[in-house]
Amino acid sequence: MKLAQRLDNLGTETAFAVSAAAAAWAAQGHKVYPFHLGDINIPTPANIVEAALKAIRDGYTGYCPGAGIPALRDVIAQDVGAKRQVRYSAENVSVQPGGKPVIGKFLSAVLDPGDEALYPNPGYPIYESQIEYLGGIAVPYGYVENNGAYALDMDRIRAAITPRTRVLVYNNYHNPTGAQSSRQEMEELAELALRHDLWVLSDDAYHEMRYAGEPLSIVNLPGMQERTVILYTCSKRFAMTGWRIGAAIGPKEVIDAISKLNTNAESCTTHFMQHAMVEAIPGDTSGPDAILAELEARRDAAVAGLNAIDGISIAAPESTFYLYPNVTKIMERKGLQDVNQLMDEALKQSDVSFCTRHHFGRAVPGETQHYIRLAYSGIDVPSINEGLRRLKAYFEA
Amino acid sequence: MKLAQRLDNLGTETAFAVSAAAAAWAAQGHKVYPFHLGDINIPTPANIVEAALKAIRDGYTGYCPGAGIPALRDVIAQDVGAKRQVRYSAENVSVQPGGKPVIGKFLSAVLDPGDEALYPNPGYPIYESQIEYLGGIAVPYGYVENNGAYALDMDRIRAAITPRTRVLVYNNYHNPTGAQSSRQEMEELAELALRHDLWVLSDDAYHEMRYAGEPLSIVNLPGMQERTVILYTCSKRFAMTGWRIGAAIGPKEVIDAISKLNTNAESCTTHFMQHAMVEAIPGDTSGPDAILAELEARRDAAVAGLNAIDGISIAAPESTFYLYPNVTKIMERKGLQDVNQLMDEALKQSDVSFCTRHHFGRAVPGETQHYIRLAYSGIDVPSINEGLRRLKAYFEA
Repeated sequence: MKLAQRLDNLGTETAFAVSAAAAAWAAQGHKVYPFHLGDINIPTPANIVEAALKAIRDGYTGYCPGAGIPALRDVIAQDVGAKRQVRYSAENVSVQPGGKPVIGKFLSAVLDPGDEALYPNPGYPIYESQIEYLGGIAVPYGYVENNGAYALDMDRIRAAITPRTRVLVYNNYHNPTGAQSSRQEMEELAELALRHDLWVLSDDAYHEMRYAGEPLSIVNLPGMQERTVILYTCSKRFAMTGWRIGAAIGPKEVIDAISKLNTNAESCTTHFMQHAMVEAIPGDTSGPDAILAELEARRDAAVAGLNAIDGISIAAPESTFYLYPNVTKIMERKGLQDVNQLMDEALKQSDVSFCTRHHFGRAVPGETQHYIRLAYSGIDVPSINEGLRRLKAYFEA
Repeated sequence: MKLAQRLDNLGTETAFAVSAAAAAWAAQGHKVYPFHLGDINIPTPANIVEAALKAIRDGYTGYCPGAGIPALRDVIAQDVGAKRQVRYSAENVSVQPGGKPVIGKFLSAVLDPGDEALYPNPGYPIYESQIEYLGGIAVPYGYVENNGAYALDMDRIRAAITPRTRVLVYNNYHNPTGAQSSRQEMEELAELALRHDLWVLSDDAYHEMRYAGEPLSIVNLPGMQERTVILYTCSKRFAMTGWRIGAAIGPKEVIDAISKLNTNAESCTTHFMQHAMVEAIPGDTSGPDAILAELEARRDAAVAGLNAIDGISIAAPESTFYLYPNVTKIMERKGLQDVNQLMDEALKQSDVSFCTRHHFGRAVPGETQHYIRLAYSGIDVPSINEGLRRLKAYFEA
């Protein structure tokens, strides 16, 4: 039986293959040090679990509106607005089963076939997949490395804009590099978006996963709130990746379209969880604070462990839970050409599992450096220390 | 800011407007008798709630595979196969956040722009919406009324098939009419699907919501399992409409495509709920049995209450929780042209809320009879009795 042609343009998250390889290696009796997936091995705060259970017992087990319950839309509008010093109301919020659904639904709502969309590469691979699945032209931009830290390649962004460019996907506090914009850089981006009349997807998945500094948001700059949709998720802040709850926040017209897509796609987001989040988002911060403190300790351990390896030098990002070290010198030392070979060998030689540049979008012509990505959200400090000692032994061998 | 053109072809569920009107009427201090929405006002069985809570406490709050956890895929394969006397395995199952996501994902996976898809009209409105959103041609087929019962209009189906027909959407145990196929009718449908090489979406949302008789499934007929995707949901059987969990079951190739769409759209279905369903689906049937017994009592009350109205004659369907009475004589008595006028007046005059033919797809040219749809899943027996007494007074006035 023939399948539809549109599937030819559908990509995926190849990082799941890394999980499968790690699981297969573990099944052979090896202890694996899991730096590969951006999942969180910290329990969801107990107050959220209790609030969800109470909502079930209160009977919130039936349908609710596709856009979400009014109380949660309101709570998210207040929280997201206050943290960005702008004003949103409930009509600007569409509750979603996670942050990820915002990518496809936003692009479905604003991108016509043949339109160009600028997206970060390396970056979350679903941007590239969904742009191309919807018939758009995925135009990558990258990051400039400087002393183990990363910044947007603004020259490339400027050069890539054409009359067909409709969308800028912007992931400040960036997966995988941890890059964050200065205010000046953000202003330059906003100026480009205004001048070229672009829609902006602001993937704010890590906006609240910060170990220092005040977060900036592009919606805070003049003229940007009207053209920006924020991807919001409960997954990271509340250690709820597997619950699946998030939201799109933006201008009413595009939010209405996104909610209509929701009514078509999944009716609504799990009802009782929405009542739980009405309590959790503006409520007790001790759970999120403890999650962030644990992640900061892990970051420090992971940065120290990586910098102890001869040939690796990386700065400590102020946000996300990812590190993106340049391993070009390691590759040269080992005589390897493809960084996925390094990944495969590292698992076998050191029991350490990680992703590589290849899991974050198609390589861009002209790339000469090699990178791996380590996530420290799913591994505790003692295992980080032991895993990176083992990785050092293998990388330096 | 301009939105994408594809939104011009996106429909929705207009029944939510009926909910809004009923809520507005209730807010004015009226007691509303809610026959309008297919939601279930019965608690989710306690063993499922307990199993979900245990899964949260056991730490199943992180991501899981996009296709679902292997144990649930296996349980659904066994259950769906056994109830249809065919063999499925885990690779034939993609867990989804509800039954509804199967409609859009199945059509995305098999329907190219310009392809024709046959779909029931009156029927669940998302079929029409998603076929047209994806650029397909939505070709309606209807039902033949006979003594207040309904059967597929097989002549229309046969006449509507062209060389461009790719898909047959088949909702046996049908919303809104309660129609069910005889074995002979199902064999005729299967023969058409084989002869014209059609994909079949078998919307089995009500396969287990049966008050009499053994359910039949088209996948049980020769050659059909290879070309059919089943829409499966936990929503009805377990009174879990607001939890959002269901599955697509079908040939591995199309299921793999659907799971890849899942990875793109929402990563995975809520993790801890999947562990709860591993216990619930093959486990204790006292919860589902009690739900079905309650619904049967409601059906009997609703059928009796409708047949007590002068001008209405309806048979008792063996499945679903919907009734679709012909109200043409009532319309004539009142001198009304549009059945939505009857709906609006009935709410104001009798406090009874229901949907109409207009909420189940665009009217087909040549329709002369008028219909309303009453759902009895969200209203208890005493309220059914009182509500239909009030409706009788208004309809007969």
